[in-house]
Amino acid sequence: MKSSSVPVPIAITMGDPAGVGPEVVVRALASSRVARRVLPVVVGSVPTLERGAALAGVELRFLEIDARGGSLGSSRPRGDEREPRRVAVVTPAGMTRRSGARARGQTAYACVAEAVRLCADGRTRGIVTAPISKATLVAAGLRFAGHTEMLRKLCGSRRTVMMFACGELRISLVTTHTPIGRLTQELSRGGVEEVIQMTKKAAVALFGKAHPRLAVLALNPHAGEHGLLGAEEERIIRPAVRSARKKGAVVEGPFPADSFFARGKWKDFDATIAMYHDQALIPAKLLAGDNVVNLTLGLPFVRTSPGHGTAEDIAWQGRASAEGMVSAILLAADLSEKVRLPLRWD
Amino acid sequence: MKSSSVPVPIAITMGDPAGVGPEVVVRALASSRVARRVLPVVVGSVPTLERGAALAGVELRFLEIDARGGSLGSSRPRGDEREPRRVAVVTPAGMTRRSGARARGQTAYACVAEAVRLCADGRTRGIVTAPISKATLVAAGLRFAGHTEMLRKLCGSRRTVMMFACGELRISLVTTHTPIGRLTQELSRGGVEEVIQMTKKAAVALFGKAHPRLAVLALNPHAGEHGLLGAEEERIIRPAVRSARKKGAVVEGPFPADSFFARGKWKDFDATIAMYHDQALIPAKLLAGDNVVNLTLGLPFVRTSPGHGTAEDIAWQGRASAEGMVSAILLAADLSEKVRLPLRWD
Repeated sequence: MKSSSVPVPIAITMGDPAGVGPEVVVRALASSRVARRVLPVVVGSVPTLERGAALAGVELRFLEIDARGGSLGSSRPRGDEREPRRVAVVTPAGMTRRSGARARGQTAYACVAEAVRLCADGRTRGIVTAPISKATLVAAGLRFAGHTEMLRKLCGSRRTVMMFACGELRISLVTTHTPIGRLTQELSRGGVEEVIQMTKKAAVALFGKAHPRLAVLALNPHAGEHGLLGAEEERIIRPAVRSARKKGAVVEGPFPADSFFARGKWKDFDATIAMYHDQALIPAKLLAGDNVVNLTLGLPFVRTSPGHGTAEDIAWQGRASAEGMVSAILLAADLSEKVRLPLRWD
Repeated sequence: MKSSSVPVPIAITMGDPAGVGPEVVVRALASSRVARRVLPVVVGSVPTLERGAALAGVELRFLEIDARGGSLGSSRPRGDEREPRRVAVVTPAGMTRRSGARARGQTAYACVAEAVRLCADGRTRGIVTAPISKATLVAAGLRFAGHTEMLRKLCGSRRTVMMFACGELRISLVTTHTPIGRLTQELSRGGVEEVIQMTKKAAVALFGKAHPRLAVLALNPHAGEHGLLGAEEERIIRPAVRSARKKGAVVEGPFPADSFFARGKWKDFDATIAMYHDQALIPAKLLAGDNVVNLTLGLPFVRTSPGHGTAEDIAWQGRASAEGMVSAILLAADLSEKVRLPLRWD
């Protein structure tokens, strides 16, 4: 983690109020590592955040600020050290106080939309999102598989890529929330190559790798074993790797996914491209635990989130770990501090 | 590992001569842990094994024995401790000295068939196979995806199940060498339930768990998230779990595969049922490394193999690790020593 004299302004959504979001956000904000590094603007509801703070036993004073005006600086702690630290909160216009899945879905969307506006206005440099429930989005009639798709729409981005990161482990996904049964239809040579190119851009622009080395995973068991166990390696993945190479990318693969992680081959590369969700998430979570951060490539700003979901089974019990949220906030600050905004991906 | 005064007779195939098989077999046989525990009968070619021993720098004396008669005991070391240890070798009838993919495939098949005969005759109690190449089987016109399918045919077994094991980690696979694009067609409620039942039987008969607790993994990301990210959890996996429960199995799931391993949930169960190859192998190899052993359920005897493949890129260079082969041989000895043969799965 870089030290910096100026905290980085980051928008943080509180997530689904029925999940662990509010609790992990307030816990993370109370941590000294986050407090030193980040000037947070929480997007959500002050009463919900206060309830989270009471549950977590942390002292924070939430100050509602106007989304359009007013200085964020006023929310920074000053003077008496014994005063609870102040945290700026923006309550989005579309927020509803009603409960139920539909209202929760609407609130989730309103918070993300507000965070995007804060970045567009230059008031925050990046976004960290707490987990929301896809079922509530559906209940609210919002046809997004998750945050990533929502952010793509809100920012008018042509293409976004989901990456999981922790230290030197970085895994981009060619498909994200695709049912296994639709994987082969969704995979295309162009799609794989695009993710290679965007991962390369991220490695250069965000991670400071001048000449990044990239690895691509196979789809099928044993990397298809010369076409005997699946055709996608020969038909889609190998041609995509060859094409990216011709355009100057340093990229190898497809590698069988099982031995690639177990033998530590990923350490030879600056980033790895995986074909589907669990292929990336099983090893990412095993290797990085709660510190794995979900990073969205393709947006005009940096967006991160913790690797976990709403975890409703342990919500509001005071036992959710904020480790993932702390990692997500610190990575957002580290990456967005040094880049020129808006990020360009074309 | 159990200590035992009587070494367990185990047939060990040498694997594809173009791969690391011969080297890891001779290295494993030279290890004191294997020598104390196992009475090996290697199925393969004496010249190839001698070449492997020379490469690995281990002193073993290979004694060709008649597949049908003669005492295995004669191959055991006795008398002068400075004499190289003797290892019995059976050369299968169908073995060819020609090289090329077709001949290698024929030899691979002949060795496995011979090992099955040794078990059927009661001369060995189990089989350990060194890796073969599926491409050579195809070249030889043998339509087997691998050892497991070949053994099923040779033994006339109705159903086999591939399990990966290391200590308390045990993962059974519902599908094995299935291309990802065919997974949803191959998965069925009956198939999932059958693997649950066979895993339960293995946990009782082989692993000594009187009342095994089993976990079942989901197929889709986030376990399908209530059907939003795939229908197989609701349509196939949940009904299979319910049905197995009604018949007395203690089984839970489907669990999302990523957090299941990362959060150590697998430790709460005696065995886990995975839906496809990489879902089992990515975590198994990350958690157990080279010690992960491939175990076949459904045969009349115990059959194991190391988790790695032929690794032709490092074959005959004297740098292959025998750790996986040692683990496979020791597990075969441990499991087959205590059971009543032939094993029954119905």
